[in-house]
Amino acid sequence: MRQRVKALAEKLGARIVGDGSVEATGVASVATAGKGDIVFAEDEQNLAAALKSHASAVIAGNFAETAKTSKALLIVANPRLAFARAAHLVQNNAGQQTGIHPSAVVHPSAKISGGVSLGANAVIGQARIGDRSLIGAGCIIGDGVELGEDCEIYPNVTIYPGSRLGRRVTVHAGAVLGSDGFGYVRDPKSGRYEKFPQIGTLEIEDDVEIGANTTIDRGALEVTRIGRGTKIDNLVHIGHNCQFGEDVIIAAQAGFSGSITIENQVVIGGQVGVAEHARIQEGVLLGGQTGVLPKKILRGKGVAFWGTPARPLREYLRSLASLAQLGKKGNKE
Amino acid sequence: MRQRVKALAEKLGARIVGDGSVEATGVASVATAGKGDIVFAEDEQNLAAALKSHASAVIAGNFAETAKTSKALLIVANPRLAFARAAHLVQNNAGQQTGIHPSAVVHPSAKISGGVSLGANAVIGQARIGDRSLIGAGCIIGDGVELGEDCEIYPNVTIYPGSRLGRRVTVHAGAVLGSDGFGYVRDPKSGRYEKFPQIGTLEIEDDVEIGANTTIDRGALEVTRIGRGTKIDNLVHIGHNCQFGEDVIIAAQAGFSGSITIENQVVIGGQVGVAEHARIQEGVLLGGQTGVLPKKILRGKGVAFWGTPARPLREYLRSLASLAQLGKKGNKE
Amino acid sequence: MRQRVKALAEKLGARIVGDGSVEATGVASVATAGKGDIVFAEDEQNLAAALKSHASAVIAGNFAETAKTSKALLIVANPRLAFARAAHLVQNNAGQQTGIHPSAVVHPSAKISGGVSLGANAVIGQARIGDRSLIGAGCIIGDGVELGEDCEIYPNVTIYPGSRLGRRVTVHAGAVLGSDGFGYVRDPKSGRYEKFPQIGTLEIEDDVEIGANTTIDRGALEVTRIGRGTKIDNLVHIGHNCQFGEDVIIAAQAGFSGSITIENQVVIGGQVGVAEHARIQEGVLLGGQTGVLPKKILRGKGVAFWGTPARPLREYLRSLASLAQLGKKGNKE
Repeated sequence: MRQRVKALAEKLGARIVGDGSVEATGVASVATAGKGDIVFAEDEQNLAAALKSHASAVIAGNFAETAKTSKALLIVANPRLAFARAAHLVQNNAGQQTGIHPSAVVHPSAKISGGVSLGANAVIGQARIGDRSLIGAGCIIGDGVELGEDCEIYPNVTIYPGSRLGRRVTVHAGAVLGSDGFGYVRDPKSGRYEKFPQIGTLEIEDDVEIGANTTIDRGALEVTRIGRGTKIDNLVHIGHNCQFGEDVIIAAQAGFSGSITIENQVVIGGQVGVAEHARIQEGVLLGGQTGVLPKKILRGKGVAFWGTPARPLREYLRSLASLAQLGKKGNKE
Repeated sequence: MRQRVKALAEKLGARIVGDGSVEATGVASVATAGKGDIVFAEDEQNLAAALKSHASAVIAGNFAETAKTSKALLIVANPRLAFARAAHLVQNNAGQQTGIHPSAVVHPSAKISGGVSLGANAVIGQARIGDRSLIGAGCIIGDGVELGEDCEIYPNVTIYPGSRLGRRVTVHAGAVLGSDGFGYVRDPKSGRYEKFPQIGTLEIEDDVEIGANTTIDRGALEVTRIGRGTKIDNLVHIGHNCQFGEDVIIAAQAGFSGSITIENQVVIGGQVGVAEHARIQEGVLLGGQTGVLPKKILRGKGVAFWGTPARPLREYLRSLASLAQLGKKGNKE
Repeated sequence: MRQRVKALAEKLGARIVGDGSVEATGVASVATAGKGDIVFAEDEQNLAAALKSHASAVIAGNFAETAKTSKALLIVANPRLAFARAAHLVQNNAGQQTGIHPSAVVHPSAKISGGVSLGANAVIGQARIGDRSLIGAGCIIGDGVELGEDCEIYPNVTIYPGSRLGRRVTVHAGAVLGSDGFGYVRDPKSGRYEKFPQIGTLEIEDDVEIGANTTIDRGALEVTRIGRGTKIDNLVHIGHNCQFGEDVIIAAQAGFSGSITIENQVVIGGQVGVAEHARIQEGVLLGGQTGVLPKKILRGKGVAFWGTPARPLREYLRSLASLAQLGKKGNKE
């Protein structure tokens, strides 16, 4: 939605330096910005380039106040955060609400709220879809699924029956939610594996974002839960019965076997693997490719772990240094 | 299918203590069980909670025989296995056979056996679908595909032309079966890669289960084969020409490059990587994130390997301990 | 397209020994070859088996020249490369161009060039599809997408709006192209994450091949680019703003977080992880499961790196040997 920089500044809590009557129509990078675009600068070095760009306005910190420029400046404490918010404010979503495509297949007793869009060939079972939610083309939404308001489900997503999603949940293309967990019992006589029942559910709370082709299994007998505000990247695997807290960050290709607890504000790097029944306590950071052993508990707000098995970062770095030293010694002998 | 505990006990080979006329209508966890549900207890500690639950019957071992309870007890040697079987016996599958949805696109010369269900927008080429198989919404089944009886293919699965699946094969949503292998030949003059023909097939034997968004490539010139009863978790990659034995267990995100042999009863942890032409012999166990080098042979029933490159577990644990020691020494200096 | 071996030899630059009038109808492995098939042998050992096979012609090196056989021999410098090319020449693609399936949903202002095939239930937005391109069943092609000529998009692929693909690009089933990058800004007051705009684009150049269920994110504000001739295996993740060069090889399940530069001719093993802002220079090789730290630069044509963090192969092997030694010493104490 296009608006004057002045109006935008008010919503962002920014102080204006320069002409607040300029119109903002979009956000852009410094390299690609044109007239009407807003850019941002986090430090003085980036400010110079931002001022040279074709943007109409620049979001920056106090350091920009005395800059000589004809552009409008929006002075804030956290330019990156203000830029992210500005993007949402100027973004033009009109036209996304395309209504229910005639090729969509909707169960007669599905409950489709007002303002919902269903893409071409979407298949909706006996589900409930909240106000203004968008379901992409080719999505398959099973019976008993409940979606809150303002969800955005990209194309070709599959949601298994009975899964529940909160409000403003975003799910990227190809993700699979609520699939069977990986649980079998071995018959000692035959050596064959028989399936343990996978009849629990999946609950995803408000403001969660889930990446492309990520898979989240439902509980075996109970619930797999993803807490409010948690962000999950592409190709992540989350097994049955896992309990994820709020505002957790999970980078691409991380994997969680089953019955794992991840507390609030944990940050997990790419390709991390966590084994069954482990618990990662509040605010812990796991470096990329870290491996956490079964039943392990890792604790400490802001404490980083790395390696397989996961060890406190500093300790692990010392081991790595010693190991490198050994490699060199080996060379001299 | 609801039935009396007595009838169930007979099928499970369980001995009843208490009232066998109680009706069983489902299975559940101890925490969520209600009237009609069956729960299980593997040891005395869990038995107490099971007896306090709202379940109508408890599957347990000999240790439960003298328990004071009004619930029906089913005494078996392996309570977890009996519980898994009970789940299948009481599960109500009526209504799953929903017939052929009018929006399904079926090639005129496809052979669809009796009792087959095709979900909305499923696309079936010149394929053969066995009795009572369920094909989920949005699945794409290529020409020449053969599916045995009682298969269950969840939504949005793609099966490339010519793949053959046995009986009772379960494939979870988003999986891709029979895709081209990753094989190229480099032209030394141009430095460019040209595609090596990927025209083989994929054969999946009876009772295999394949997780969500897993990919299995067909052979380059011959066959990729997955043996009977093998269970594969989500987001696993199996490359061209691999030969997997029977009753193999493969946890999520494991990857197998190409021309690999995995013998019967091998157990492979999450995020394991196996390089081309390796052979993992019968009954070997690979810990999570293990890496196996090209052409490597690992042997020994029940022998565990860990680390990259894979080493016998004990030996590797000693190395890790020494490494940790080095980290500490480094600290003192 | 069936043709005489003589005609084929001319196209391959091969010298014929024996009867060039034999008809070639296909390629095959030595084990499965029948009449009309071509096989290949890279060395004398494999030549014996090739000559015993039922194939009609054998592609081989100079070493085969004096072989006693009734089969036609095609003598070339690089038998594997010639075989790959022969496969393309004899392959019968007639019948693949199946036209536009009546169930395909095509936006009225989409530009569909001549000879394009759209599979059943494909959904095409306001996109441009180049001559002779094949779009598989169930694919979702967003608004503003541009596809060059002779592309092959397998079923259930999702291409987000605005992505641009060159000519002869192959995308396997379930891949997701142009999805949102994983970028958030944390509000220090609330501790919550807000989405950084992901409004850039994705450009894929000519002759790229992308594996099944692979995901490639578009740029945050600018462009993610995959260079000409690059080959990407299954379940690979490529994050926002990455710049990949030409003729890069990426094995399955490798992951690239964001803003990474991969120069021409780099070869990346399976399950490799590369962290943000790293640069892998021309011709570098990364062994399987290698981890590259943020901002790291790796250089050297033909130089191999391995381990996490990535180290020159030789150095790392010495460290591993020392580590194994420590494990043994630990044992003796």
